[in-house]
Amino acid sequence: MAKPKPLEQLQLELVRLQYWLKCTGQRLLVIFEGRDAAGKGGTIKRITEPLDTRGYRIVALDKPDSREATQWYFQRYVPHLPAAGEFVLFDRSWYNRAVVEPAMGFCTEAQYRAFLDAVPAFEKLLVDDGILLLKYWLAVDQKEQEQRFAERAHDPLKRWKLSPVDLKARTKYAQMGKLRDTMIERTHTAHAPWFVVDFNDQKRGRLNLIHHLLAQLPYREQDIPAVELPRLKDKPRREKVTAKALRVPEVY
Amino acid sequence: MAKPKPLEQLQLELVRLQYWLKCTGQRLLVIFEGRDAAGKGGTIKRITEPLDTRGYRIVALDKPDSREATQWYFQRYVPHLPAAGEFVLFDRSWYNRAVVEPAMGFCTEAQYRAFLDAVPAFEKLLVDDGILLLKYWLAVDQKEQEQRFAERAHDPLKRWKLSPVDLKARTKYAQMGKLRDTMIERTHTAHAPWFVVDFNDQKRGRLNLIHHLLAQLPYREQDIPAVELPRLKDKPRREKVTAKALRVPEVY
Amino acid sequence: MAKPKPLEQLQLELVRLQYWLKCTGQRLLVIFEGRDAAGKGGTIKRITEPLDTRGYRIVALDKPDSREATQWYFQRYVPHLPAAGEFVLFDRSWYNRAVVEPAMGFCTEAQYRAFLDAVPAFEKLLVDDGILLLKYWLAVDQKEQEQRFAERAHDPLKRWKLSPVDLKARTKYAQMGKLRDTMIERTHTAHAPWFVVDFNDQKRGRLNLIHHLLAQLPYREQDIPAVELPRLKDKPRREKVTAKALRVPEVY
Amino acid sequence: MAKPKPLEQLQLELVRLQYWLKCTGQRLLVIFEGRDAAGKGGTIKRITEPLDTRGYRIVALDKPDSREATQWYFQRYVPHLPAAGEFVLFDRSWYNRAVVEPAMGFCTEAQYRAFLDAVPAFEKLLVDDGILLLKYWLAVDQKEQEQRFAERAHDPLKRWKLSPVDLKARTKYAQMGKLRDTMIERTHTAHAPWFVVDFNDQKRGRLNLIHHLLAQLPYREQDIPAVELPRLKDKPRREKVTAKALRVPEVY
Repeated sequence: MAKPKPLEQLQLELVRLQYWLKCTGQRLLVIFEGRDAAGKGGTIKRITEPLDTRGYRIVALDKPDSREATQWYFQRYVPHLPAAGEFVLFDRSWYNRAVVEPAMGFCTEAQYRAFLDAVPAFEKLLVDDGILLLKYWLAVDQKEQEQRFAERAHDPLKRWKLSPVDLKARTKYAQMGKLRDTMIERTHTAHAPWFVVDFNDQKRGRLNLIHHLLAQLPYREQDIPAVELPRLKDKPRREKVTAKALRVPEVY
Repeated sequence: MAKPKPLEQLQLELVRLQYWLKCTGQRLLVIFEGRDAAGKGGTIKRITEPLDTRGYRIVALDKPDSREATQWYFQRYVPHLPAAGEFVLFDRSWYNRAVVEPAMGFCTEAQYRAFLDAVPAFEKLLVDDGILLLKYWLAVDQKEQEQRFAERAHDPLKRWKLSPVDLKARTKYAQMGKLRDTMIERTHTAHAPWFVVDFNDQKRGRLNLIHHLLAQLPYREQDIPAVELPRLKDKPRREKVTAKALRVPEVY
Repeated sequence: MAKPKPLEQLQLELVRLQYWLKCTGQRLLVIFEGRDAAGKGGTIKRITEPLDTRGYRIVALDKPDSREATQWYFQRYVPHLPAAGEFVLFDRSWYNRAVVEPAMGFCTEAQYRAFLDAVPAFEKLLVDDGILLLKYWLAVDQKEQEQRFAERAHDPLKRWKLSPVDLKARTKYAQMGKLRDTMIERTHTAHAPWFVVDFNDQKRGRLNLIHHLLAQLPYREQDIPAVELPRLKDKPRREKVTAKALRVPEVY
Repeated sequence: MAKPKPLEQLQLELVRLQYWLKCTGQRLLVIFEGRDAAGKGGTIKRITEPLDTRGYRIVALDKPDSREATQWYFQRYVPHLPAAGEFVLFDRSWYNRAVVEPAMGFCTEAQYRAFLDAVPAFEKLLVDDGILLLKYWLAVDQKEQEQRFAERAHDPLKRWKLSPVDLKARTKYAQMGKLRDTMIERTHTAHAPWFVVDFNDQKRGRLNLIHHLLAQLPYREQDIPAVELPRLKDKPRREKVTAKALRVPEVY
């Protein structure tokens, strides 16, 4: 078996993927779900690092404001769906209502049930419209999660990421596991399957996820045409700002 | 003189800055302008790399659609301004109308003049409202820019970033320099000064810019309080997905 | 049989309906479809005339801009769905893709088919979420429609409403009738039935529609509580603008 | 002197105005301010009654949600500004912060002062961009206002419009008068003057306002071209819905 590609090479493939999206006008939506500290944010960073900032968007929505809370449940997510050529990454998603909200008491039992009923139909509408949809669950054992929490609590630069909700969620690990299973049972469909990734080793988890993501999409065929740079007529100039502005001091 | 901090340390400071924004509810808007290949995108990536994805947004707007083109010029930028605690990074900005658009003939002479008249008042409204606004011009000599273009044209994974507009802009280096000077002359104000950064060496340019950015903001005083993790009652559990889902193969 | 209520009385009932929406937080969406000159706009005006401007919205979307055209078909309609207490009136709707677009060649055959497949599921999501959805088709014979077109073409203040698309649609009366039947066959569902209203007599059509609309909704039970105005302490003052402003001359 | 035109004729002129906006791409923004029960809503209804629903928008914003409250003060109004050919009517506006908010204690003294400082510059940006801006204050004596409140409180279909804020505002008539004068003193500018209209007689107030509004705009020159309706080839058809749908009963 061939040696798996290192991160750098996967990131080059991601650039190819983005180019393919741009050329074909395909729309890609990837949902990242998982417990706190599972590694969603870090994975998203690794994926987007090599990409052109025009062309992808990371969507991490806050809790709904008071007006949004009365609207159609999916309404606040819809404006963020990808247009032609766009790659959208959801750091958490509508699945908040499947695990976090019921565990924390942020939604009613009726809202929870209605959500599970609605999701497959909603996602089918998107997929039938041609949106490429991938859903990942980043799995992490409680022992590992606790270790990461401990590191965060210890690290003065990370501990502020531990919100009161995170701390409360710690005590609900088992309950959230059941909710996750119900979520997958009810929303793992042919048109929008769930992919579970072991993230107990974050670095390997990230590589496996990116490798898998790339394998789902037929981006390879796209050839990037050569670009020719005509010779300039004049000799190159210096960028000399003559207008009065402030110079950033050269400390480095 | 003390040795300047390496990138890693600057990035830790950026985390502190984000925490300060979050705690104080301050709003930060940073505008990155400069020629193609000057290094705007790479700098934005280095800045946001260490940050919590909730809390910052990169804004790189496409050209206006047909309806937007008839609206108040600043209208399409306004929805992206930062709310409390947010850090917004503009990869190009309303200053498109100061350099790129007039150089390329994408706006009329009257629109160009109206823009230069309007900018100081518009930015003053934002600053008076309490938004922290920083504007950077990343300066790069034509020789260096040409080298980067040549690299891009050569690299099969980068050459697709060279748009026809980029290629046309190559031939207008001198004209765009004049437009840049006029822009700075007209929009370098006490409330919203321009900072010019030498980006002929991208790595040093990035460090100087981040160092300077941090020095503008009084984020240091904020102390990040300790977080205590109460002991869990039960022994840690495994994340065992019993629902039927697809496993991402462990290639790594 | 009791004499039917005149328009004034129906409009009072509409006020009661709006109050009921406000008190209960119910959300009402009414879709008005029909050929050009059928009477959609006039009906919407009669319905909204008595209502508090806070609380209802008329939505008459233009054709999609270039970016919207690549998004999920329903995406541009979703932001206009009603929040708690709101009454939204759609003057044409997503059903553009069922009649006007295929008749005029504004969509592909594949898009047309995909739309018919998607609508029932999309509307079910809204209805299951609790949105009250009513769909009316305003029916008008071609003879009557022609008469109205002739009046419009004659009237210097109305003829500008006759767009080139309207004129082209005139010649497609029969084809659009077939498309309307297919639309109803495919999207007349238990959760979102179509109601057809005879609008050959516009005045009676409007009354019948409003009467029917009111009968669908259990707004009557809501009692509007009395309001007590405490006596003011001082004697009433004049509104005397002492600041320098311009007075609108009293011509009447 | 010529007899003033009745409402019907003014409404025909408003249609001409809308046509002129459409043809020239001009953008019109009219702000309606005044005390509760002054007659803002009724005036807006009379103005929009004859207009094509495509082409105008009534904007009556609720109080800001929690996120909006932290943004640039004008941010939530900006998306509603008119695009080419549009006529936007603001039923209350950013001037909430000049009278209602300070009277009711909904903003701080500092926010109030900052608002008064900012408005002239903000409005100048819009006017310089070419937006046609008109600002009306509908003046009503307290005696008349009290009478209207009494009618509303008495009328079971109107009393629900009397909000607790309205009732509290009753007791602040004099204070709000002073705030109104300060507002006008500070924001009555050459580029955006205030027009005061006597609305003690609502009917006459409406006529005077519409008459004045029309006189501000050079819409008359625009000629509405004739439209020719080619003869149809086939004989006119009936609108016969053969698909299974529900018929709205003909009660009238």
